[in-house]
Amino acid sequence: MTKSRLEAFSDGVIAVIITIMVLEIKPPLGFDVAAVRPLVPVFLTYVVSFVFIGIYWNNHHHLFHAVHRVNGATLWANLHLLFWLSLAPFVTAWVGGSHFATLPVAAYGGVLLGSACAYYILTRMLLRTHGKDSTLAKALGTDVKGRISLAIYVVAIALAFAQPLISCLLYVLVAVIWLCPDPRFERLVGAKD
Amino acid sequence: MTKSRLEAFSDGVIAVIITIMVLEIKPPLGFDVAAVRPLVPVFLTYVVSFVFIGIYWNNHHHLFHAVHRVNGATLWANLHLLFWLSLAPFVTAWVGGSHFATLPVAAYGGVLLGSACAYYILTRMLLRTHGKDSTLAKALGTDVKGRISLAIYVVAIALAFAQPLISCLLYVLVAVIWLCPDPRFERLVGAKD
Amino acid sequence: MTKSRLEAFSDGVIAVIITIMVLEIKPPLGFDVAAVRPLVPVFLTYVVSFVFIGIYWNNHHHLFHAVHRVNGATLWANLHLLFWLSLAPFVTAWVGGSHFATLPVAAYGGVLLGSACAYYILTRMLLRTHGKDSTLAKALGTDVKGRISLAIYVVAIALAFAQPLISCLLYVLVAVIWLCPDPRFERLVGAKD
Amino acid sequence: MTKSRLEAFSDGVIAVIITIMVLEIKPPLGFDVAAVRPLVPVFLTYVVSFVFIGIYWNNHHHLFHAVHRVNGATLWANLHLLFWLSLAPFVTAWVGGSHFATLPVAAYGGVLLGSACAYYILTRMLLRTHGKDSTLAKALGTDVKGRISLAIYVVAIALAFAQPLISCLLYVLVAVIWLCPDPRFERLVGAKD
Repeated sequence: MTKSRLEAFSDGVIAVIITIMVLEIKPPLGFDVAAVRPLVPVFLTYVVSFVFIGIYWNNHHHLFHAVHRVNGATLWANLHLLFWLSLAPFVTAWVGGSHFATLPVAAYGGVLLGSACAYYILTRMLLRTHGKDSTLAKALGTDVKGRISLAIYVVAIALAFAQPLISCLLYVLVAVIWLCPDPRFERLVGAKD
Repeated sequence: MTKSRLEAFSDGVIAVIITIMVLEIKPPLGFDVAAVRPLVPVFLTYVVSFVFIGIYWNNHHHLFHAVHRVNGATLWANLHLLFWLSLAPFVTAWVGGSHFATLPVAAYGGVLLGSACAYYILTRMLLRTHGKDSTLAKALGTDVKGRISLAIYVVAIALAFAQPLISCLLYVLVAVIWLCPDPRFERLVGAKD
Repeated sequence: MTKSRLEAFSDGVIAVIITIMVLEIKPPLGFDVAAVRPLVPVFLTYVVSFVFIGIYWNNHHHLFHAVHRVNGATLWANLHLLFWLSLAPFVTAWVGGSHFATLPVAAYGGVLLGSACAYYILTRMLLRTHGKDSTLAKALGTDVKGRISLAIYVVAIALAFAQPLISCLLYVLVAVIWLCPDPRFERLVGAKD
Repeated sequence: MTKSRLEAFSDGVIAVIITIMVLEIKPPLGFDVAAVRPLVPVFLTYVVSFVFIGIYWNNHHHLFHAVHRVNGATLWANLHLLFWLSLAPFVTAWVGGSHFATLPVAAYGGVLLGSACAYYILTRMLLRTHGKDSTLAKALGTDVKGRISLAIYVVAIALAFAQPLISCLLYVLVAVIWLCPDPRFERLVGAKD
């Protein structure tokens, strides 16, 4: 089974997710600075979510570059990841409109955590069909970034019930950690080519 | 005529359908647990619809893997399937907001039934151009799952007028039946490769 | 310059157009038959618009099957077509909510007429780069269907100011005329292959 | 690393952006000419934004035609461009509903300026991996159009605080300058093929 249609479908879903989030930024009713001010948290949340989805697309792109075989389980693991990502527009709108209240910030963290777990499951499914000596296995390695992200997300969700703004900073921190595409993949896949 | 553009267009439409459904989950106005409670049925319906569209994408992917020729009739049979699937965001929003009332639940079943019939018609159109001894014909076989689904949908729609919650459970049952990608295709197409 | 990215982009835009129209069908607030009745014209308009966009995708697919070269002018002629098609969700929502009033029905016809003209311009642009003896030129032939459609659209728009319902029937008539993919293309392109 | 998935993802995002803008044109509540009049500025802004996004797609298409290698930095430079373009539906809706007030017109210019800068950064990133003697370097040349556009955008944003309508005319002027696909690329890439 070829991976090209799975990539095309994932690209389509991620492209729609990253773009329809902007529909949640309602144009302000007034046209002066006062009317724009409530948009600031909405806009900031949009930027973070855009980067967050962008990171997943980037990592997905790098991951599947090293993938040779997909099967039925991979298709569902991939759809599971897309499910969590598809909730991004909802939590983005909720957080942005709430001025960073506890429950929306925790829910946002829940979507980030769910996406990270889904990505982890996807990599395990792919490893099962590629073997320990595959380029993929070497490229994924011990996945330190992935483990650190999961830990930070759990802490941030718990913190949302005390200091939601610090949770938001932790979400940004994870984005910064991931912002550069994974050099492990570029190095290894490049070496193989 | 090649099948690649038909696949690309179907992927695009299904990617948009599966993603814009989330726009129907309006962010709650409040930020406490009470404000979130009305979202529970909306969210559950979203999960079921996501899985339902995911199953169709999965089956479409497997089906066209065994397809070699498409003609004008195939294009329209495929668009007919996409039409029924495109109604999913509408019935999802209606059921979710109705707390599982009779008419929305029946309408949801109608869309599921219409999609199942459209998929059946599409497979018949494809069989006509591929012949009885094709990989496709062998892979489709007697299509037991398809027939059972149709029967369950008809029962569930009728039941919606007495016990809409049981209809919903029946919709979930069909999803569970289809959740695994069709092993017939994987085995046969794999054997051919 | 290759045609594949133009096809991919057109597929993407048309896939989004045909799918977001469903967002204009707002779920009814009530859950009985009375609440559903106002949806009937909205739903009928949706079906016609879906078929109308489907016809353009179908014809676009067949047209570009016979195309070998695209240039800058082709890209813009194609974007011009996509512009007119992109107005479909707007006029669909307006007609559906108006119970077929004069101005919305005329505007709907305007979008159909604009799309038909844009498609005509696109075929002329393509003919210029393909020559009189190309498969494309033979396949397009005298384009009787295209000319008839244009005439019917002009009549229907004028009639909207007297009998908007008859205009709607004329729009449906044009859809019926085009519903079958163009046999000229299938025959000629098939003969060439 | 191949460029095809980057192109496919960009096509997907741009296709969604160019199409969802139409959702911001709300169907008028009335059905006479008076009800339609407030739509005129909304519609004009939509046309300009459609052309603006169309120009970026066109240039992106031409640019990547001359590109051979993409790396992690390119992926992010491309996402940065898509981020600015994704704000187009928001500023389009805001300008259209404001009858060309100062702040929305300046914000619209800000999105145009941000997109132009992001495109410039993308070309520099690509040049770094392609070298001075590449087709790409020759095709980009001194990028006169790009520099002129940046200057006009800065002037137009400043002017918005005095004469927003003139700013709008300047935005249209830049669109006219770019409307033709870049002949440098067509000539050079054509010569190479």
